[in-house]
Amino acid sequence: MTAEIIDGKKIASEVKKELKGRIGKLIDSGIEPSLIAVLVGDDPVSKQYVNMKHKACAKLGIKSRIVTLPESTSESKLLDLIGYFNQDNTVHGILVQLPLPDHINQLKINLAVDVNKDVDGFHPANLGKMLLGKPSFIPATPLGIMELLNRSGNNPEGKHTVILGRGELVGRPLSVLISLKSNGANSTVTLCHSGTKELGHFTKQADILVCAMGRAEMISADMIKPGAVVIDSGTTAVDDSTSEKGYRIAGDVDFESASEVAGYITPVPGGVGPMTIAMLLANTVSAAEKLAGKSDER
Amino acid sequence: MTAEIIDGKKIASEVKKELKGRIGKLIDSGIEPSLIAVLVGDDPVSKQYVNMKHKACAKLGIKSRIVTLPESTSESKLLDLIGYFNQDNTVHGILVQLPLPDHINQLKINLAVDVNKDVDGFHPANLGKMLLGKPSFIPATPLGIMELLNRSGNNPEGKHTVILGRGELVGRPLSVLISLKSNGANSTVTLCHSGTKELGHFTKQADILVCAMGRAEMISADMIKPGAVVIDSGTTAVDDSTSEKGYRIAGDVDFESASEVAGYITPVPGGVGPMTIAMLLANTVSAAEKLAGKSDER
Repeated sequence: MTAEIIDGKKIASEVKKELKGRIGKLIDSGIEPSLIAVLVGDDPVSKQYVNMKHKACAKLGIKSRIVTLPESTSESKLLDLIGYFNQDNTVHGILVQLPLPDHINQLKINLAVDVNKDVDGFHPANLGKMLLGKPSFIPATPLGIMELLNRSGNNPEGKHTVILGRGELVGRPLSVLISLKSNGANSTVTLCHSGTKELGHFTKQADILVCAMGRAEMISADMIKPGAVVIDSGTTAVDDSTSEKGYRIAGDVDFESASEVAGYITPVPGGVGPMTIAMLLANTVSAAEKLAGKSDER
Repeated sequence: MTAEIIDGKKIASEVKKELKGRIGKLIDSGIEPSLIAVLVGDDPVSKQYVNMKHKACAKLGIKSRIVTLPESTSESKLLDLIGYFNQDNTVHGILVQLPLPDHINQLKINLAVDVNKDVDGFHPANLGKMLLGKPSFIPATPLGIMELLNRSGNNPEGKHTVILGRGELVGRPLSVLISLKSNGANSTVTLCHSGTKELGHFTKQADILVCAMGRAEMISADMIKPGAVVIDSGTTAVDDSTSEKGYRIAGDVDFESASEVAGYITPVPGGVGPMTIAMLLANTVSAAEKLAGKSDER
């Protein structure tokens, strides 16, 4: 068997096309959806992520502004800035790029962002609402994975989803989201992690296998059930002398061998990545619509 | 094999004994731990639960007060009352007995309780903090199940825990709690529910099987892995003409047959139930200690 590729770029562009219509309506009614991205320090990878988000906004007609602060910025100064944007009614979404410097308490920052502008979905109250199955902002990567599955014809309902990795950005929230009693979810879910013995025992049972560990190419074909849907959310830089940059980005799955066994598979890059950005944009548009009174309460 | 009984009453009394020491210290320093229980309407089961909590408080030296409101109480009136107790510094814990009448939005009520007095752990921000593995108030039943496991020598670390039922009071929060990267947790977890096909396929793999579906005696011996730890959180009233009341309380597990296969098992009643009350008391004592500056930030 050769797996069908789930094309994240293509699905993300479908999502963005739909957003364009919603953005047009907002602009027609005098509301310009707007996102503030706060970047503390000058980590090149964080910088690159923020720039990608900024460009994606611009392309779609979302006003976006990057606020860059020095690494030495105090926690209280960052809190003040968030408070300022919370008050600004022309700002609909606020994201604080992670990771933050060690002297800043990430939880405090997440708690400071107005829950109605928390387009990253990292505020505990939004995570808690998600857990209760109530409307909330949902972190972009798990939300993107749900879209990838449903839009590729792989509705997780009634299936057994095995998730590898319990990180707060992907595996943990996805394990909640995909098992909610709602359409397009309703999956039986197993959450595996660094404390799991015999990983293969679980992965081989997965109708849907989501890998979010960040360990390069750890999942091989013999760990995958024939015909399974394999979603790879891993991105690890590995040395590669054949590449111009000297490295390449590897997923958690050994793509070549896995695609001989799986029924569907996402590539890295071009799978989950583009969806993460698309869903951040979707959350921002939802936030603007909510302010305009066009959407359900979140 | 005949399973060893996990005696919830005995373990709960151990927990309460430890609390007594903490309560004594608080009282010595001039702080009388205090709980407000709000009961809306006159459902006899809710009344009975609230009374049990009240009595347990009294026995231990926690000041407790039941505020009973008529079924017709408006949402805004209930919100006002919660606001009043939020402001009252002599009140450390506030619980609103569930279920609420249909005309009251439960989420709004949960959101109204001060996160630092939310001894039921139902505020979305507390649930979200739990999901992030941060200190928070944790709902009493899942917290009680964690204590039952650890205090009976059945640390879930490295084990495969299968949970039946994704309700917001037990199964859902426990699935998060038991898989956190922390001592006494760190379990691989599978969450099954009404959308799960072939339940037995999953239950038979469980080192620890937690039943929280509320379906009387649905889990039979043939669904249990020999030697497994079986925790039964179900309580369903079933007709029983041999009982004085005309009914008896049944768990989700067919205790007689299951106890021939399991290694450990909780009875119903006398298993999870007493732990739920003990952990509510523990949360109230923690809230009082926090106000006294004796505990970590929640």
